[in-house]
Amino acid sequence: MLPAFEPRDPDYAARVRASFERQGFMRSLGAELTRVEPGVCEIRLSYREDLSQQHGYFHAGALGSIADSAGGYAGYTLMGANDSVLTVEYKLNLVAPGRGDLAIARARVVRPGRTLTVCQVDVFAVADGAETLCAVMQQTLIRLEGRPDRTGRDGSPSSAT
Amino acid sequence: MLPAFEPRDPDYAARVRASFERQGFMRSLGAELTRVEPGVCEIRLSYREDLSQQHGYFHAGALGSIADSAGGYAGYTLMGANDSVLTVEYKLNLVAPGRGDLAIARARVVRPGRTLTVCQVDVFAVADGAETLCAVMQQTLIRLEGRPDRTGRDGSPSSAT
Amino acid sequence: MLPAFEPRDPDYAARVRASFERQGFMRSLGAELTRVEPGVCEIRLSYREDLSQQHGYFHAGALGSIADSAGGYAGYTLMGANDSVLTVEYKLNLVAPGRGDLAIARARVVRPGRTLTVCQVDVFAVADGAETLCAVMQQTLIRLEGRPDRTGRDGSPSSAT
Amino acid sequence: MLPAFEPRDPDYAARVRASFERQGFMRSLGAELTRVEPGVCEIRLSYREDLSQQHGYFHAGALGSIADSAGGYAGYTLMGANDSVLTVEYKLNLVAPGRGDLAIARARVVRPGRTLTVCQVDVFAVADGAETLCAVMQQTLIRLEGRPDRTGRDGSPSSAT
Repeated sequence: MLPAFEPRDPDYAARVRASFERQGFMRSLGAELTRVEPGVCEIRLSYREDLSQQHGYFHAGALGSIADSAGGYAGYTLMGANDSVLTVEYKLNLVAPGRGDLAIARARVVRPGRTLTVCQVDVFAVADGAETLCAVMQQTLIRLEGRPDRTGRDGSPSSAT
Repeated sequence: MLPAFEPRDPDYAARVRASFERQGFMRSLGAELTRVEPGVCEIRLSYREDLSQQHGYFHAGALGSIADSAGGYAGYTLMGANDSVLTVEYKLNLVAPGRGDLAIARARVVRPGRTLTVCQVDVFAVADGAETLCAVMQQTLIRLEGRPDRTGRDGSPSSAT
Repeated sequence: MLPAFEPRDPDYAARVRASFERQGFMRSLGAELTRVEPGVCEIRLSYREDLSQQHGYFHAGALGSIADSAGGYAGYTLMGANDSVLTVEYKLNLVAPGRGDLAIARARVVRPGRTLTVCQVDVFAVADGAETLCAVMQQTLIRLEGRPDRTGRDGSPSSAT
Repeated sequence: MLPAFEPRDPDYAARVRASFERQGFMRSLGAELTRVEPGVCEIRLSYREDLSQQHGYFHAGALGSIADSAGGYAGYTLMGANDSVLTVEYKLNLVAPGRGDLAIARARVVRPGRTLTVCQVDVFAVADGAETLCAVMQQTLIRLEGRPDRTGRDGSPSSAT
């Protein structure tokens, strides 16, 4: 049912994986990049007590973080070798408690654009092997043309705006 | 300019602080609760490399996490001693890179309600002592009446829906 | 792929149609309710010059209006005979110009809840018989229990909050 | 408290008013442009039965429409003489019923940018002379450089993306 997208950069997967590796925050959360296809990305996060909100579930911020990265990288698969990507905005609905041992964010591009790309992301919590939808996100990304995503903290792109 | 709110629970500040302490995720981020007043909450987060996105700025997810908690606790100041609070949804615009040594999320209640509360949150990045607005959030919370926020992972409230 | 929902009110379709009829705004726009099924609703709107924005396309507000009503009624199909429904919030991305002779809003319930329901809505513009996705919405609804949707301007439910 | 913005086009007000005049939808709603200043815009809408939802209040879509236009024109005040503006996305929280004889949307630019601009809009319902906050919006706009807002339905800018 999903539209099939044609990546303009044949090395999109390696480019996405390298960018993900540079996200210190994904590493410190313990997030794993488990699927990268044209217009699609999946990130998984195992539960730890230090990812919890006050009732012991996954914190909305942790779920939002993997959803944001999954959406950003779904969009990034369709960008060029010399582009980078920034999140313009996202909106996250928490629809069930993030209760379980694993969270999975599955993102897909809804509309890729020359400048802006729109994604939707479903986040599932997995308990006893059963997946429950716990959050849905709608997200807008911006492509920064000709500013490759290889730079450090000082040589970085300026604002998304 | 902001409306003045009258808390229904005189011990609101202690209740908010105790709930914040139970958020393992805020602790692991290193976030600090620096202001709690009726309808108002501020959370600060010092930069560390493990909070970064791929360009070395604060990850949108980290900024979203402290903004979500700040909004949630701004709303929680106005709830009752036996209530708990859950995030229904939030929408975050990243308006400038989160570049700096410190991020500050400042939340205020826009409309408190019997069931639902709406908050707005401004997030600033501080570099060389100057604050730059880097994100704005609009958030909806739900009050869970008579389900105090003191329970562990097993005795917790069910879904926000 | 969509979950199948079981309506609790067998007369859900008549109840939705009667409520739609009471929306003076849908009538003045010229919107038509073209599909009502459990958890699903479709609304169509023919182009007129007085629905335009400054470039002659469908105004984002007109598209948002039919999307909001479609989402609201998708949720309302799953509510009880004595309930009414209000929109808590929605977020609309405009992903292509609303260029065409017809707009179609197709809404589905993502997560029905006792209090809150979350919907997603796709809006298509139809030109020369071809549908183009022009907007996507993520929406939160609240069920007002025991306050039937039959009242006039004075006997109406109070705030969604 | 609001930042003061310096318009780059001294004729910004005339440009905004001319664009508003071209919005057939604002005209058919009966909306009036009542304030245009750098980074600020206000639109008013008198109640009519044909703007109602099913309980006789202002329809969320009508409120969203004037809020969207107010935000768009607040942003447009800061753009250039040869630019046009499109809405990328908006998020609207309904915080109280739109009950009254008048609705007022007051928009301000939060962050103007070269490409993207972020606005916030408060919508008030006025009954018996008293204003009640009934909706809040957070909105993202895109500037289309060098594509003046003077064209008809056929010579119009392409997608916001």
